[in-house]
Amino acid sequence: MDKNSTDIQELLPAYLGIPTFMRCPVTRDVSQADVVVMGIPFDSGATSYRNGARFGPRKIREASLLMWGYNRHFDVSPLEHLNVIDFGDIDVDPTNIDTTLGLIATEVDRAISAGATVIALGGDHSITLPILRSYAAKKGPLALVHIDAHLDTEHGSIEHGTPFRHAAREGLLNTNAWIQIGIRGPGTHPQEINEAKELGAEVLEIDECFEIGIPAVIRRIHERIGDGQVYVSLDIDAVDPAFAPGTGTPEVGGFSSHQILQLVRGLRGLDVAGFDLVEVNPPYDSSDITSILAANIIFEYLSLLAVKQTSR
Amino acid sequence: MDKNSTDIQELLPAYLGIPTFMRCPVTRDVSQADVVVMGIPFDSGATSYRNGARFGPRKIREASLLMWGYNRHFDVSPLEHLNVIDFGDIDVDPTNIDTTLGLIATEVDRAISAGATVIALGGDHSITLPILRSYAAKKGPLALVHIDAHLDTEHGSIEHGTPFRHAAREGLLNTNAWIQIGIRGPGTHPQEINEAKELGAEVLEIDECFEIGIPAVIRRIHERIGDGQVYVSLDIDAVDPAFAPGTGTPEVGGFSSHQILQLVRGLRGLDVAGFDLVEVNPPYDSSDITSILAANIIFEYLSLLAVKQTSR
Amino acid sequence: MDKNSTDIQELLPAYLGIPTFMRCPVTRDVSQADVVVMGIPFDSGATSYRNGARFGPRKIREASLLMWGYNRHFDVSPLEHLNVIDFGDIDVDPTNIDTTLGLIATEVDRAISAGATVIALGGDHSITLPILRSYAAKKGPLALVHIDAHLDTEHGSIEHGTPFRHAAREGLLNTNAWIQIGIRGPGTHPQEINEAKELGAEVLEIDECFEIGIPAVIRRIHERIGDGQVYVSLDIDAVDPAFAPGTGTPEVGGFSSHQILQLVRGLRGLDVAGFDLVEVNPPYDSSDITSILAANIIFEYLSLLAVKQTSR
Amino acid sequence: MDKNSTDIQELLPAYLGIPTFMRCPVTRDVSQADVVVMGIPFDSGATSYRNGARFGPRKIREASLLMWGYNRHFDVSPLEHLNVIDFGDIDVDPTNIDTTLGLIATEVDRAISAGATVIALGGDHSITLPILRSYAAKKGPLALVHIDAHLDTEHGSIEHGTPFRHAAREGLLNTNAWIQIGIRGPGTHPQEINEAKELGAEVLEIDECFEIGIPAVIRRIHERIGDGQVYVSLDIDAVDPAFAPGTGTPEVGGFSSHQILQLVRGLRGLDVAGFDLVEVNPPYDSSDITSILAANIIFEYLSLLAVKQTSR
Amino acid sequence: MDKNSTDIQELLPAYLGIPTFMRCPVTRDVSQADVVVMGIPFDSGATSYRNGARFGPRKIREASLLMWGYNRHFDVSPLEHLNVIDFGDIDVDPTNIDTTLGLIATEVDRAISAGATVIALGGDHSITLPILRSYAAKKGPLALVHIDAHLDTEHGSIEHGTPFRHAAREGLLNTNAWIQIGIRGPGTHPQEINEAKELGAEVLEIDECFEIGIPAVIRRIHERIGDGQVYVSLDIDAVDPAFAPGTGTPEVGGFSSHQILQLVRGLRGLDVAGFDLVEVNPPYDSSDITSILAANIIFEYLSLLAVKQTSR
Amino acid sequence: MDKNSTDIQELLPAYLGIPTFMRCPVTRDVSQADVVVMGIPFDSGATSYRNGARFGPRKIREASLLMWGYNRHFDVSPLEHLNVIDFGDIDVDPTNIDTTLGLIATEVDRAISAGATVIALGGDHSITLPILRSYAAKKGPLALVHIDAHLDTEHGSIEHGTPFRHAAREGLLNTNAWIQIGIRGPGTHPQEINEAKELGAEVLEIDECFEIGIPAVIRRIHERIGDGQVYVSLDIDAVDPAFAPGTGTPEVGGFSSHQILQLVRGLRGLDVAGFDLVEVNPPYDSSDITSILAANIIFEYLSLLAVKQTSR
Repeated sequence: MDKNSTDIQELLPAYLGIPTFMRCPVTRDVSQADVVVMGIPFDSGATSYRNGARFGPRKIREASLLMWGYNRHFDVSPLEHLNVIDFGDIDVDPTNIDTTLGLIATEVDRAISAGATVIALGGDHSITLPILRSYAAKKGPLALVHIDAHLDTEHGSIEHGTPFRHAAREGLLNTNAWIQIGIRGPGTHPQEINEAKELGAEVLEIDECFEIGIPAVIRRIHERIGDGQVYVSLDIDAVDPAFAPGTGTPEVGGFSSHQILQLVRGLRGLDVAGFDLVEVNPPYDSSDITSILAANIIFEYLSLLAVKQTSR
Repeated sequence: MDKNSTDIQELLPAYLGIPTFMRCPVTRDVSQADVVVMGIPFDSGATSYRNGARFGPRKIREASLLMWGYNRHFDVSPLEHLNVIDFGDIDVDPTNIDTTLGLIATEVDRAISAGATVIALGGDHSITLPILRSYAAKKGPLALVHIDAHLDTEHGSIEHGTPFRHAAREGLLNTNAWIQIGIRGPGTHPQEINEAKELGAEVLEIDECFEIGIPAVIRRIHERIGDGQVYVSLDIDAVDPAFAPGTGTPEVGGFSSHQILQLVRGLRGLDVAGFDLVEVNPPYDSSDITSILAANIIFEYLSLLAVKQTSR
Repeated sequence: MDKNSTDIQELLPAYLGIPTFMRCPVTRDVSQADVVVMGIPFDSGATSYRNGARFGPRKIREASLLMWGYNRHFDVSPLEHLNVIDFGDIDVDPTNIDTTLGLIATEVDRAISAGATVIALGGDHSITLPILRSYAAKKGPLALVHIDAHLDTEHGSIEHGTPFRHAAREGLLNTNAWIQIGIRGPGTHPQEINEAKELGAEVLEIDECFEIGIPAVIRRIHERIGDGQVYVSLDIDAVDPAFAPGTGTPEVGGFSSHQILQLVRGLRGLDVAGFDLVEVNPPYDSSDITSILAANIIFEYLSLLAVKQTSR
Repeated sequence: MDKNSTDIQELLPAYLGIPTFMRCPVTRDVSQADVVVMGIPFDSGATSYRNGARFGPRKIREASLLMWGYNRHFDVSPLEHLNVIDFGDIDVDPTNIDTTLGLIATEVDRAISAGATVIALGGDHSITLPILRSYAAKKGPLALVHIDAHLDTEHGSIEHGTPFRHAAREGLLNTNAWIQIGIRGPGTHPQEINEAKELGAEVLEIDECFEIGIPAVIRRIHERIGDGQVYVSLDIDAVDPAFAPGTGTPEVGGFSSHQILQLVRGLRGLDVAGFDLVEVNPPYDSSDITSILAANIIFEYLSLLAVKQTSR
Repeated sequence: MDKNSTDIQELLPAYLGIPTFMRCPVTRDVSQADVVVMGIPFDSGATSYRNGARFGPRKIREASLLMWGYNRHFDVSPLEHLNVIDFGDIDVDPTNIDTTLGLIATEVDRAISAGATVIALGGDHSITLPILRSYAAKKGPLALVHIDAHLDTEHGSIEHGTPFRHAAREGLLNTNAWIQIGIRGPGTHPQEINEAKELGAEVLEIDECFEIGIPAVIRRIHERIGDGQVYVSLDIDAVDPAFAPGTGTPEVGGFSSHQILQLVRGLRGLDVAGFDLVEVNPPYDSSDITSILAANIIFEYLSLLAVKQTSR
Repeated sequence: MDKNSTDIQELLPAYLGIPTFMRCPVTRDVSQADVVVMGIPFDSGATSYRNGARFGPRKIREASLLMWGYNRHFDVSPLEHLNVIDFGDIDVDPTNIDTTLGLIATEVDRAISAGATVIALGGDHSITLPILRSYAAKKGPLALVHIDAHLDTEHGSIEHGTPFRHAAREGLLNTNAWIQIGIRGPGTHPQEINEAKELGAEVLEIDECFEIGIPAVIRRIHERIGDGQVYVSLDIDAVDPAFAPGTGTPEVGGFSSHQILQLVRGLRGLDVAGFDLVEVNPPYDSSDITSILAANIIFEYLSLLAVKQTSR
């Protein structure tokens, strides 16, 4: 597929024009889309510290205008190979997480039923649960690459610290192909990591990541995930606050921007069925560097999909 | 009552020490308190624009350390006459407004049952509803002075734009003694103000306030409220964003800081049963000027109570 | 004309969705438009101090999402009476003011040739010159209401301090119906105001505005302008930096937000042919209060047009 | 005296060049100077809340580049009539207020001994004491116009809350010609204002200023000060934090920028011997609006001196 | 000792409640304390560039609320093993460093006389001197691990650049067991490092740290310090400004957050008698990332003490 | 040459005094200068995203006051060996890039004709072209070390993305001795790097830099450049936005501050004829960390020159 129609837009300066994601068309018509980028500006699941991730999708779109179209790591211009639409934002209800999760699931269902790959822009991490529900309903339990400072397998009702416990308990995950990467920080109680492992996760703490290096981490991911369909959920707080200050629960001692890009590029070859990027919190950002990093990560997501498409 | 024990603390520089409200003791023991200052860091009711008011109570406490003890307008040092406690913050659930409203009501019940006056620090404006419920349950429908840029009588479920419709419908208000002051801004639909009036409110729009001047506004309040017990709810966005940028739904064209202080001081003589100050949103503040203004307003609240006490 | 289709959009929370101006459709098709809102993100004319106004249009659009649809001052919901389109941003060349001025003129020509009223979002004040050129070419010399801290009638080549000297010299203005309001600040040389007057302007300095009051200023405007078609150019630095810090050449001692809104509303009855709002400079804003004020001013522009339309 | 040599410099854009005060020459040679602008970056006297005023002089210089040369209120271009030098900053010792006060006095002595008028840029308010000492040693006790939110006549050792008690006690002031303007805010104890009055001050609280209006305040100043030599000390926190957020002890409910400029211009006709402007605290400023206001005030100081010079 | 009473508090969200250090009780009763966390908000010793570290203790306390209780590196929940109190802030006198140093010494004396370990939160680096004086008076000269970008062994009176010269000269240090780590940046004069060495310090410059790696640095520390009691003084500017922008004299090219945590954890096994963390300067921080890093470092301090206690 | 006269100035605290570059004298007399530091506050060439680099020279000067005089890496105090002047800023015309480029060339010509080495402080990257023109006119085509995230060899008219294409085409470069280091980020089109290579550049992308390490990068530079005269152009966006957020087109995944300093120090031994440092954009900086890094890089430039001078 040739998509030269986007050529001119890519060359516009980033300060100019209405900020849709990478200047893709805004539409709710998912029928022709290869990829549906959808904003989910819900942050009432941010129970631990700072909210404000409701402004994440808008700012990531704005930063995406810096994504001129060519990815030299994969020698691909993703928008030339993929029909990407900006779905806009899903309407959410800040006062009611249950209502909101239902609204999310409905829209994700529509997109994946139409055969598209979803890239969700959070919002806080609670939004991943309804996405996983929709995917599992359509495709069965998925493998999971979860990149984050926090396990998010806490006990309790649905909020941004618990989605993966719920997902595992609800049978949405292929827990034999589940890996968590970048975990660190003061924990709530000693059993946390063991509990995540009991749920099925392989846990790669940040110290191990630093010791073995990103290429080895990538190998561990591929070994763990294998050939099945996989969902990728990336909490921007996996990255160190120096590189990503705009987040809700900053955790020092994390990945650099270079490392996170390496890591995401290393997902090449996995059969990724869907992606999210959550917890970008613009009111706490500094000069938009977190949103710009986030847009770069989404650009790598798109590139992974373009490479997958072109290598078929 | 002499409360010299606070004398030394008042003289500490504002940058020093643990920020409790005006260096009052932190306790959940309300039995001896004349006034209970309680933080309600709930902001999932902020459905229209920016959340972050969960950080309001903490920042107002910090700013309160600038409140050296003497009020020359009333010739009173409120902490010498009132036993004021800092109740700390009520635990809230950002994912569930109903649960939260119950938690608030429970704590407010305790304080007013013990005979104390509550001063609530929001949080968004949805927190006023459970407070009014508690007061009404104890004292019957109350008069209401509502100072705000917005009517907050919208239709719909409980959130920060609807508390007073719910309160009126639930019979919590003496609607014959209800006044709304400072209303302005683009409205959702033409019927809004009429609907507020149908619910019982007298509405003083900002233009009328500017035309007649604050002293006349004060007279209107006294005429409307009369002798009964009254609740005072002040949304900081009544003040212009130049003076109070740190708020969730900034509305240009509002009161100056001088005017809002005049207005609050003008409540002298009313039989105020309780107060709140809501929608202080520190992440959007500039150099803490909104929190400092808020602390000054609370200081005036305390002074009104001290004057009432000493004039008995 | 009924435009209920916009009803739902108006009710969306401001943090949600793609920020087009007041959620109006983005299109370059001006044929059906009553009003064309166009961004002109050019700021290389900002020769005196701070640039960055290129981000003005985007931020004003974002703030416009707070403009729920009803204006109680005029009892009108402008989007119900006017077909408003968001034209997006005109492409500009920061390295070349002449090229840019040509690009602006071309697009403005299209809009006014189609019978639409243009509302231009700057960008620095140099953008007003090509707009005036287009209008004059179509309609002959126009009356001018110029609200600003600065005269912008300096000598020299085209930049943001000189547009009105050029306009007057080029015969674009009906100089008998030209008024400048809000002028203040340290001047470059003693002759400045006299030179503006020699060009034809009536100059209302800020001190006179404060002394006679806004209603009297409004009367002066109407007396000066009369019945002819008039262009309105508003530099946000007419407003005091407390209310509008986000601008390129802040000038202390200016209008309050309440006063500027009063002033703009006072234009009711004039036969306004076009509007601009320039010098909103988001990188220097505080909590977006300048952009929010700007969006409110544009909302008043639209209301003036809606009132004019409905009163025909 | 004609000083056309500065003409070109005045026309330079404000973002360009080394920021000396209004592009005046930097020199320690006071022998030819009419006016010596000296920075005193000392802020260890800021005992109550925020320090950082050490960066005040630098930022005021930067903002002064916006002071194009002509003052239309007085029809004067001050730099054409006055030989103004930028003395640079006096070296200070943050760990030792006594040493620092000595250093200040030494430099001020030199300037006034050479016949120059000193304009001091603080720094916190403790710097006024050594300046008054130097002036009194040379000229005897001076009248004092003190514009401030705070009395600064507290008991205790020398710091920013006590300079005028020390000055009065040391006999540096003509206490019959001492007026304090703009006083407000929660006080430390009930006796404060009476104590200031006992020291000799006439105190104009902010409420009275707002009630009688700035022109009447000006009359009160002239009545109080009379014909003698007077020192003018202006703490920027006299202005409301909306207009001057960058200060150490913000006090809400103060003057607007327009009012403070009116007030300073109203000093015309007084025989001013020296000036200071203190407590500008750039780290807490917003978009430099406080520094820009401060630079405008200094520009009015210079204009007062130019008018005095030309009217001789 | 079981301290389950803290369990509930640890689970509170970080935005809620009065910010005492890790929600430990605030008390001046040191008699039962294992660890006394004391704030020392003195910053008049900041002679080189930016002050503002007086706000360090408050912000570190606020950030400490993110320290959920379990440390997986040491498999320990420090608050379960240590009785930690928040001593509040020591009163200081910004105008007088000598007075302040005396006040600090008095309070530190009390704490260590009661058998507690002190963790001091600065404030600028001058505060370390009186702490060392108190320790040396009680325990004799101590070994010293000094982590910093700067040597702080300059000549001259006591301020934040000179404490260790004074300490060495006063005999407070076991100079055979003194190491300085992270030194870098443009120096004042060529002899600096040699002079530090002549005083007794082993100096590990940042380049050597990067070359040999943190584990080797840790070995060097242990070799140098040995078995004796050691004091740990950490200036946050040892960390790169990207990770710790909120400091007074930022020095580029420093440690990452991961490296500093590694380094502090590497102190395990040393017989640490006391700790400080200085030069956290919140007004210059970005999104509180410096304070959050500081709180994490203190959490590691506590963990070192808990491990030491449990391994006895 | 002994330059002890600067000794005292170096010891002044950084917050004090007029910010000239490292307190060097400001003069346009280049006749005695070894090094001419000139500000070029032009940023209308910033066509891709954010402008504001016009404030770069001023802020770098301010940060340079932290550069105490001794460089321990080279055991040299550059100001003792070099006569460095601060030329101030070149006047520029934001509305006209051609005029501006002429103005730059004129001033650079003067400096190099007098035998001085130029260190230019940008401004955006378009300013490099006229500098190269002046150097080439005097010395013939130069080798070029270009450190940047972007190739800046795009097609099109002169702006900040095209200078090196123009330079190569104009024959200003010895293209056999041209190397580009740090290149990364989404590209405009697949041919970009090949086109740069076709122009003559050796391109070291960031991934290769990270893989081989900075010492190997340095070797590659020396191999490529050899013995001829070389110009060094460093765009601060070569550094990661975590370390240098204050820039116009932030590109994630870049060098750390330690790495960039290593890299610049590694230029020792090259015969550097001139330097620039561009795209420092203070309005987008965080706590001035970008400007401080920039000042450190210039300090290394000076040190390279001092070492070259002393080793002759």
